[in-house]
Amino acid sequence: MALVVQKYGGTSVGNPDRIRNVAKRVARTCDAGNELIVVLSAMSGETNRLVSLANEMCELPHGREYDTLVSTGEQVTIALLAMHLKSMGYKAKSYLGWQVPIITDDTATKARIERIEDARIRADLNEGTIVIVAGFQGIDANGNITTLGRGGSDTSAVALAAALKADVCEIYTDVDGVYTTDPNICKEARKMESISYDEMLELASLGAKVLQIRSVEFAKKYNVNVHVRSSLNDNTGTMVTRENKDMEGILVSGVAYDKNEAKIVVMGVADKPGTAARILSALSDASIPVDMIVQNVSQAGLADFTFTVNKTDLKQAMQITNQVAGELQAREVISDEKISKISIVGLGMRSHAGVATTMFSALAAANINIQTISTSEIKISVIIDDKYTELAVRVLHEAFNLQG
Amino acid sequence: MALVVQKYGGTSVGNPDRIRNVAKRVARTCDAGNELIVVLSAMSGETNRLVSLANEMCELPHGREYDTLVSTGEQVTIALLAMHLKSMGYKAKSYLGWQVPIITDDTATKARIERIEDARIRADLNEGTIVIVAGFQGIDANGNITTLGRGGSDTSAVALAAALKADVCEIYTDVDGVYTTDPNICKEARKMESISYDEMLELASLGAKVLQIRSVEFAKKYNVNVHVRSSLNDNTGTMVTRENKDMEGILVSGVAYDKNEAKIVVMGVADKPGTAARILSALSDASIPVDMIVQNVSQAGLADFTFTVNKTDLKQAMQITNQVAGELQAREVISDEKISKISIVGLGMRSHAGVATTMFSALAAANINIQTISTSEIKISVIIDDKYTELAVRVLHEAFNLQG
Repeated sequence: MALVVQKYGGTSVGNPDRIRNVAKRVARTCDAGNELIVVLSAMSGETNRLVSLANEMCELPHGREYDTLVSTGEQVTIALLAMHLKSMGYKAKSYLGWQVPIITDDTATKARIERIEDARIRADLNEGTIVIVAGFQGIDANGNITTLGRGGSDTSAVALAAALKADVCEIYTDVDGVYTTDPNICKEARKMESISYDEMLELASLGAKVLQIRSVEFAKKYNVNVHVRSSLNDNTGTMVTRENKDMEGILVSGVAYDKNEAKIVVMGVADKPGTAARILSALSDASIPVDMIVQNVSQAGLADFTFTVNKTDLKQAMQITNQVAGELQAREVISDEKISKISIVGLGMRSHAGVATTMFSALAAANINIQTISTSEIKISVIIDDKYTELAVRVLHEAFNLQG
Repeated sequence: MALVVQKYGGTSVGNPDRIRNVAKRVARTCDAGNELIVVLSAMSGETNRLVSLANEMCELPHGREYDTLVSTGEQVTIALLAMHLKSMGYKAKSYLGWQVPIITDDTATKARIERIEDARIRADLNEGTIVIVAGFQGIDANGNITTLGRGGSDTSAVALAAALKADVCEIYTDVDGVYTTDPNICKEARKMESISYDEMLELASLGAKVLQIRSVEFAKKYNVNVHVRSSLNDNTGTMVTRENKDMEGILVSGVAYDKNEAKIVVMGVADKPGTAARILSALSDASIPVDMIVQNVSQAGLADFTFTVNKTDLKQAMQITNQVAGELQAREVISDEKISKISIVGLGMRSHAGVATTMFSALAAANINIQTISTSEIKISVIIDDKYTELAVRVLHEAFNLQG
């Protein structure tokens, strides 16, 4: 007998028919002799409906009340699934975040799980009850409802799997697993059988479509085996797990791209300690996340400082950067929205030279100019003109033989 | 400075515009220097939407999960009002039933309030915060969400007013108050300035449109002044309050009618102790409420036993009654759906003879035949052919000079 956590996303519970399908799979897992915790998202579209109600009421919805509002979506789906399973003759019980309780910090709209009290759930499991938990939500120390941010139900599921030491955390979605790259761009994209936590984290832009990144950090920290699979069939999906020997034989696991970033370059700034910090601290004070950061060698004591931000933050980021650049007496600040970031990721590149060479050669052979390069231990990212995105992905997928 | 409880029904919070209107009235009450607790229903239509989702999932929605589901409606409205009031610059905080907490028994879908812990709310009020509470819901001793039954938000409001010793409990609705009879039937119907708890209870069918009956029992028990008024204007409505000298001068306060009942007559049953109990206990075992109960004088040791049930319960009630009647060797059981119950209510009739005479004479003069009569201390009800309902109401309204 295994303890299984299953998480179903908004599409999988989008209407009563689909909830009945989820119930069938849950029942089958239960009939096979497993203990079962089911984590649900809100019906697809419901969270957006609630958010737009909030936006109609005020410009900046206030955190605590916003969380009280949007947490109703999961409350609806868990109740519907529980009542349907009961009508099928199963013992089932729904739990809201505060009923478990799933205790979080008090950061409204993007709270972090601090701990899960498992006594009540454990007692239900011992009695053979299917436990159904609302994803995305928790309760803070003052009894306020909190939510975990978009896609937070994945984190709820992994955190429950960690707290209850589940054998596996199955994430059901509308795709078959994690692919070597976006199948919409590259027909040769192949479903991976397994991928390490670190690779999954670096493949954010590929992975985010199937699994919230924060949930992967959680899974890594607590060693939770995560099985990403489709709710539409019984195919084995992709296992996200601790790295193992087999994985290290593979140089590159996947090719990711990200079209949501924009580039800002501060040109001709004094190359002395504190310059980068001045610019970045001003941005972080304004809660603008910065992704790639690159500083080129200086010429005549002047450096060019490049970084990327989300396109939605570009306008505000430019205002702030222009102001700081003025104070720093930089020559010029330019921005470019027509860029795309292409990344290759693989545990194998840690111990193998030549991966970068293969990457740059392949891009050069396709006449794709590289604007900026940034590397980490298991990832190489380049910024290119966004019109070459799809071409670059296909060229790199082939160069590293990812079609299998 | 007064402590005011205001309750707004589903129509008053039916969309963001209407919630903004509620916020304006709340702000005005706050600006006038009052402490304020606001109790909200779900948006009109929302509870029905949730109930039909439940009905799609299973035939008999299970109580605990049903309550978890339908309590989301109020969760949405309190959050929206709180965020809007905050954006207007007021201190406001929403409370779910379990956050107050409002502690109920564990009867899912029609729980009864057992007590309200007022410490958190009191602390907020002391800080000048507008407290916004979800109506219709509470929490039982095991941490399950419970709901109070349709219209339960009125009871929530009155119970909060009682617990916090509020000066007044204002129930905002889409009518101006309680009328001497249904204005749709009788143009001369007049809004009452005040009405006693007991009269309000007896006028159930009139009152239920503006105020849940259980909330009136609560108000009577704890002496809460309830002001039923319109959310569309600033007119004074009807004060539901303890009886006073003025009220006793009025013979009859109102004329009510009820077309939702059906009559069952068990004919020729032995007139001996236990007969009525056998029939009624069989019905109550099946949770079928019985309203009027009349037994006529017996002839030759045989009696006719008449009672009324809700039309929706008639089929089941007839099956049960036929079975018991067979055991009792009754001659025949008949039923009639085409009836209507007309009631006159008034504290004054306790000390004045002749009210019944006036009522029966007025009906006779209009050629309306009385099938059954039943009386209580402050009410006389008759059953008539339902096609005379409107005529009977108008005739009695005039006979007792209720037009004022």
